[in-house]
Amino acid sequence: MKNHIPFPALGQSRAIVERVTPEIDGGRFAVKAIINELITVEADIIIDGHDHLAARLMYKHESEKEWSEVVMHSMGNDRWVGRFVASKQGFYAYTVEAWVDHIASWQHEVDLKVRDGQHLKVELMQGELFLKGMAKLAKGDDKKAIQEAAKIMANESRYNEAIQIAMSDQMHEWLTKYPERQSAYRYQELKLYVDREKAGFSAWYSLFPRSAAREVGKHGTFKDVEALLPRIAEMGFDVLYIPPIHPIGKTNRKGKNNTVNAEEGDSGVPYGIGSEEGGHTAIHSELGTLDDFKHLVQACLKFDIEIAMDLAIQCSPDHPWVKEHPDWFKILPDGSIKYAENPPKKYQDIYPVNFETEDWQNLWQELKSVIMTWAEWGVRIIRVDNPHTKSFCFWEWVIAEVKKDYPDMIFLAEAFTKPKVMQQLAKLGYTQSYTYYVWRTSKAEIIEYMTELTKGEMRHYFRPNFWPNTHDINPYMLQGGHEPLFLIRYFMAATLVGNYGIFGPSYEYLYHAPYPNKEEYAFSEKYEIKWWNWEHRNKLTYIISQVNRIRKENTAFRNTNNLDFCSIDNEQILAYLKTASDGNRILCVTSLDGYNRQGGLVKIPLWKIGKNEWESYRVHDLLTGATYIWKGDTNYVELDPQILPFHLFRIEDI
Amino acid sequence: MKNHIPFPALGQSRAIVERVTPEIDGGRFAVKAIINELITVEADIIIDGHDHLAARLMYKHESEKEWSEVVMHSMGNDRWVGRFVASKQGFYAYTVEAWVDHIASWQHEVDLKVRDGQHLKVELMQGELFLKGMAKLAKGDDKKAIQEAAKIMANESRYNEAIQIAMSDQMHEWLTKYPERQSAYRYQELKLYVDREKAGFSAWYSLFPRSAAREVGKHGTFKDVEALLPRIAEMGFDVLYIPPIHPIGKTNRKGKNNTVNAEEGDSGVPYGIGSEEGGHTAIHSELGTLDDFKHLVQACLKFDIEIAMDLAIQCSPDHPWVKEHPDWFKILPDGSIKYAENPPKKYQDIYPVNFETEDWQNLWQELKSVIMTWAEWGVRIIRVDNPHTKSFCFWEWVIAEVKKDYPDMIFLAEAFTKPKVMQQLAKLGYTQSYTYYVWRTSKAEIIEYMTELTKGEMRHYFRPNFWPNTHDINPYMLQGGHEPLFLIRYFMAATLVGNYGIFGPSYEYLYHAPYPNKEEYAFSEKYEIKWWNWEHRNKLTYIISQVNRIRKENTAFRNTNNLDFCSIDNEQILAYLKTASDGNRILCVTSLDGYNRQGGLVKIPLWKIGKNEWESYRVHDLLTGATYIWKGDTNYVELDPQILPFHLFRIEDI
Repeated sequence: MKNHIPFPALGQSRAIVERVTPEIDGGRFAVKAIINELITVEADIIIDGHDHLAARLMYKHESEKEWSEVVMHSMGNDRWVGRFVASKQGFYAYTVEAWVDHIASWQHEVDLKVRDGQHLKVELMQGELFLKGMAKLAKGDDKKAIQEAAKIMANESRYNEAIQIAMSDQMHEWLTKYPERQSAYRYQELKLYVDREKAGFSAWYSLFPRSAAREVGKHGTFKDVEALLPRIAEMGFDVLYIPPIHPIGKTNRKGKNNTVNAEEGDSGVPYGIGSEEGGHTAIHSELGTLDDFKHLVQACLKFDIEIAMDLAIQCSPDHPWVKEHPDWFKILPDGSIKYAENPPKKYQDIYPVNFETEDWQNLWQELKSVIMTWAEWGVRIIRVDNPHTKSFCFWEWVIAEVKKDYPDMIFLAEAFTKPKVMQQLAKLGYTQSYTYYVWRTSKAEIIEYMTELTKGEMRHYFRPNFWPNTHDINPYMLQGGHEPLFLIRYFMAATLVGNYGIFGPSYEYLYHAPYPNKEEYAFSEKYEIKWWNWEHRNKLTYIISQVNRIRKENTAFRNTNNLDFCSIDNEQILAYLKTASDGNRILCVTSLDGYNRQGGLVKIPLWKIGKNEWESYRVHDLLTGATYIWKGDTNYVELDPQILPFHLFRIEDI
Repeated sequence: MKNHIPFPALGQSRAIVERVTPEIDGGRFAVKAIINELITVEADIIIDGHDHLAARLMYKHESEKEWSEVVMHSMGNDRWVGRFVASKQGFYAYTVEAWVDHIASWQHEVDLKVRDGQHLKVELMQGELFLKGMAKLAKGDDKKAIQEAAKIMANESRYNEAIQIAMSDQMHEWLTKYPERQSAYRYQELKLYVDREKAGFSAWYSLFPRSAAREVGKHGTFKDVEALLPRIAEMGFDVLYIPPIHPIGKTNRKGKNNTVNAEEGDSGVPYGIGSEEGGHTAIHSELGTLDDFKHLVQACLKFDIEIAMDLAIQCSPDHPWVKEHPDWFKILPDGSIKYAENPPKKYQDIYPVNFETEDWQNLWQELKSVIMTWAEWGVRIIRVDNPHTKSFCFWEWVIAEVKKDYPDMIFLAEAFTKPKVMQQLAKLGYTQSYTYYVWRTSKAEIIEYMTELTKGEMRHYFRPNFWPNTHDINPYMLQGGHEPLFLIRYFMAATLVGNYGIFGPSYEYLYHAPYPNKEEYAFSEKYEIKWWNWEHRNKLTYIISQVNRIRKENTAFRNTNNLDFCSIDNEQILAYLKTASDGNRILCVTSLDGYNRQGGLVKIPLWKIGKNEWESYRVHDLLTGATYIWKGDTNYVELDPQILPFHLFRIEDI
């Protein structure tokens, strides 16, 4: 005889809960939500035999001790659903509990037998016992009413009344409110993390502060950036992202256009962080002082703008860490520190940090302290440069650590890499993520990508942030400088998802000179200072202002996953519906063709907008003010890229 | 300041292993396999940055202390694969381990730099260190060779040799064999359960022993069943399943055709188990003695047949448990025991066991002891009646308990119920499961169902057993008694999956009288004894013999999941390929039309049979002996249901 299998703890339990959604990797990671989001939880729930079952969705904010619960309902095929509103920021635990509902089974049995004309006796005795059990749980009027009902059950002379009670909706309400709950099966606890609203709805503008000067030839300063805030606010952006503002290393400094050796006067690359002036918590003196920076952070808030800083964990050879902690870098057998390489290319101006260092705990603490210092300066948004080249477990730890003290902190992952790596960063805690949007240009590509992002598992943890350009990416598609294409790529970024951004003023000024044969800018601001005519206004700045205003005014834009594509018989037109639970309904129709007029019949899923085939409704173009009366699901649209290559319709009842 | 997040145990680890397949419900249940099956394990594996990574599939039989491991290979898109043969019955643990492969990264870097014409120095110093590390792990000749290589790395005058070694396949072999394995990440341990071969490949014949008598009017006995073994063996079956053989209750006994009151002389329902003669471990005396039964079990083995007993956990009111353990049943408030009901129907002859009893542990032990007693009688296969009306956790426990002592034990779940309940029973340990095969009759239905069974997650735990009829199911489709349809439904059951069975001799004798408006037999053997002319032979018995012989002779039939449907331009013909790793290739082509000739062009996926478009091959109909020379992927077939509605081709090289 071999060892015995131990009895399970709950041997009398007959319910099984499985395949709970949302659930990421068996509960390993938290699902993400935005404050006040309605969370829908589904589960497969089965019991043996033919009894009824009852199920509750249980949830609890980290600040709470008691579980709250809501009744789950069957959707058929043993799938159950329940919903709750995540009304607080931070972590929630949630799970599903289920049990055999003997009282509901009894009620059903009574119903069938009464319909069959049977005279019941033992069933009413059973009913009396059930009611007495409920009475113990109930209070006040309910308790009295249930006790009275139990008496009627026990009184043979009140048979008809007893049967009425047994079959009543009241009885069903009681059994739902005061369930017997014997040998309930509880699923494992899952985690939900609730962020503030900006995590899911934000419009980013990015610029190099050193290019903010009005006067040609001058190094831009934080004060210059402050002077630009009215312009940025006018365009409607609410996040201002700035590349690193720390002292720039001198050893092996790069020159203009990423040439190997800087010439005298070259301003260097802000990503070559650290000099004798300091590292990640020091300020590049030409930009101003730390106080100037803090002043900028506060000035932004007056315009409802938040500063996003750039966390690039890498060092110039002059960074203080190189002297103080050479063991935080990779030491070669000859004692030198390994610089960044992509053989045969060498990046001698950059030392990557070695996350495999024996001293990893101190390294992590120091990196955390960088973020905590920025947080003390008032920063609540951080764009992380190439997070996929730093260890995953570090990010998981540091993001959780920082959010303990600063739950408002938003981390944007700038990882343009393989899908599973990008997913991992989002799962382990990144609030938002850059995406493949730049390289999804055809109708089929966009629909496929958006479906993956908004209908697949990623919708529970990966918040896309769409950028039609960045300071690293000058898309091939825009290198012709064709204004309608700039408009189209902007429009889709701003309307397909809740979070988006542009690198300006290159974008709105249609700057497009490419570095030869690369998807990069020539004379990139990464390697030199540029001077812009910040007073200039054009069609792009106008449309951006309008779109950002409309985004704020229409709740359908506050969500990314509320997207449904509409069929349209033209491969050059993309039509999509965004609907909000408050009734706001937006229909975007955009041409993908920047050169020719395109028309087609767009087909609206009427049930999504609450209309019948014979009903008329108004589509109101919020960009032009034009309105059209439409009827049924199929209507004609036509777009001229020289005028405006898209409609931004609000669907309105007549 | 809030509490800190603790540092992870492996802070220097940079690898992540995810989405391992097969894996059932996050590792909650064991994956199933058949002895000597090749197990393919895949995983998503990522690391940060651009280094190389290495991964191993680890596995260990429950009898072993040390892990075995095999190298995993990249399949692209961060998916990795490894394989091992499960050569022992019982449990295996398996998992995946991954780490940054610094040596492979170094080799790649050396390669790129050498191609770029760089002169290497620190890289060779690094190589020397790597080789010294390997030498510590290596033994014998390898150790010497690696030590020598390390010396060459260190010797500047042997630069060219050193470079050659660094870039060599030998170096790659060494780094694979003696990996550095720093800060490896190990995935959670998953379970695999390996069954004996019959779990995946069996042909069941079912009969009522009491109907086995040759002489009309006599109650069949185990001795009569023994006399039928040559006939059953001649038809090629290897499992003989018999409904319950225990004493039948007398209280409220059912009569013929399930009438409420038995008449004098009615033999009762074998599922009304238990009388004063005993319960689940006693033998219905009219069938013979316990010794007779044991003799039958042994006699079967001479014909390579195993007896499958029927476990129906329910009691007649006369069962000894009712007196000894009334608390194992549901006691109503009036003190009576609740009989089975499906209101308004009453089954007063059956008391279901109450798995919610406070005394559940003793109940479980008693039920286990029933199975253990049968096992002592020599029984190694059990068909379980309606397992879905007994508690899931009981089954999980009892199957594991019994298999500890009798690893050969096979449990077949007779649960014709909802998909998720059937899946749960298979997941928790049932070896085989009845299916919806009876109700999957059109081409689209069969392809959809087979795809679910053999390509979806169920393939890892749910072993289908296809029955074209059972003693409970007289399919509507066969109620016309049309021989070609009996042939077709038999043929598909026997060739689509590894495990199948028929209820005989009703099936082979085309018995089809329906109980009015039900998918059941009139004058069912469940309620009365039948006498058959067991000597009778017909087309069905001939084809069954042939198909079972061919199944045994062709290894492609020993697996269920090796199925691929072939496109054919006729909705009334189903064509499917089954291929084995030893080169055995079977093509089944069956008409679904029992009345008309049907023809069509069947298209073979040539890469599955290892042929090119221009190659000829022979298809050899193993049922008729006919051979045809085919070429390319598209060939014509024609089937006449009056002759034979199917081809069973072996594909042979010319």
